[in-house]
Amino acid sequence: MATSPKALVFDVFGTVVDWRGSIIRECRELAAARNLELDCVAFADAWRAGYRPAMDRVRRGDLPWMNIDALHRLILDEILSRFGISTLEEGEKDHLNRVWHRLKPWPDAVRGLKLLKQNHIIATLSNGNVALLTNMAKNAGLPWDCIFSAELFHHYKPDPETYLGAARLLALQPAEVMLVAAHADDLVAARATGLRTAYVHRPREFGHRERPLPQETFDFVAHDFVDLAKQLDGH
Amino acid sequence: MATSPKALVFDVFGTVVDWRGSIIRECRELAAARNLELDCVAFADAWRAGYRPAMDRVRRGDLPWMNIDALHRLILDEILSRFGISTLEEGEKDHLNRVWHRLKPWPDAVRGLKLLKQNHIIATLSNGNVALLTNMAKNAGLPWDCIFSAELFHHYKPDPETYLGAARLLALQPAEVMLVAAHADDLVAARATGLRTAYVHRPREFGHRERPLPQETFDFVAHDFVDLAKQLDGH
Repeated sequence: MATSPKALVFDVFGTVVDWRGSIIRECRELAAARNLELDCVAFADAWRAGYRPAMDRVRRGDLPWMNIDALHRLILDEILSRFGISTLEEGEKDHLNRVWHRLKPWPDAVRGLKLLKQNHIIATLSNGNVALLTNMAKNAGLPWDCIFSAELFHHYKPDPETYLGAARLLALQPAEVMLVAAHADDLVAARATGLRTAYVHRPREFGHRERPLPQETFDFVAHDFVDLAKQLDGH
Repeated sequence: MATSPKALVFDVFGTVVDWRGSIIRECRELAAARNLELDCVAFADAWRAGYRPAMDRVRRGDLPWMNIDALHRLILDEILSRFGISTLEEGEKDHLNRVWHRLKPWPDAVRGLKLLKQNHIIATLSNGNVALLTNMAKNAGLPWDCIFSAELFHHYKPDPETYLGAARLLALQPAEVMLVAAHADDLVAARATGLRTAYVHRPREFGHRERPLPQETFDFVAHDFVDLAKQLDGH
């Protein structure tokens, strides 16, 4: 049997926190406060839909390096216009843009991370920027040992520099590190660099739509972080 | 009155942990186990004495970027030879080199950090590498929100890139960040980049030698982290 991984690095948006539910909630609060007609479900999905294309523009070199706060703001300005609410004041836009710093964890996340922290280094490995991840952890009580971000490497996942960069900073071999994620593409890219992989199923990430288990085979498949702690360490 | 700093970034060796006492203790254990005649006080001081010159060689460009684990090992190999104990096996040398990952905190450090964490982001800002700082925190129970290291910036303190790099990653203005350190030269360099400064007196860092308070004026002068928490937040 393979030895247990020394470090677990976590995808964050969708894996640790429920970005969609959090954004819908804050959007509705804003709409009520400002008496706006706004489809907050469509708004949340539109914001997230802009994320991958925006990162890909940076990955291809069409945009210079920009962190996620800056990319989120680019997308936000476009969708505010599309949803007809560009009249928000600058302070309101900036506050709304930082909703990503205030995303709420899935119900099992804090308890599961505390269990996993007992026997492993636990760290983020997210495309979110360092300030975003730090503020989120502080708000939500996520007990990370350290914060790794695409911002440290000037490469976004799934670029191999991100997975290998985390292993290098931890002074570990890639096989001593395991990526935990709810997204098969992220795990497949990590596996190609030598990391181990744990898929955690988050069927509600995109709302009520069906979300089948991935076809790929990973080292672990868990239904939440507490289940992963049980499988890894017998908690 | 100035607003309270949002983030506190900490020098680590000497400020948070007692490097000298920790190294002397492990050196004596090694000497006893291997039946070596070894002056462990001189050994600890020699190791630390090599640290600043080694970093300065990197800062001047005489050495390529090397992290502190690598610099510590360069110095260790030289002093093992000087102290006549080069016969240690490679595994023993590697384990000894990682004593810096196992340094013990000053008695007030964990309690003080927990108090300071209630109202501020608390992070390392150390010349130690990320793995060293992460392993140390895990061993010692240091509750950092995030780990900042010279290794992220490829610059050693007191280069301004380190202080400004931490503020940038936190998305804060320099004046919203305060360096906490037991060393006036570190604080003076941080102040020159716009950070606020808190001097913590660690009179025993270098053993029983007298260590006067610095002549410089800093925003705070505290006798330990619990005192700093009291001065900053009224704990």
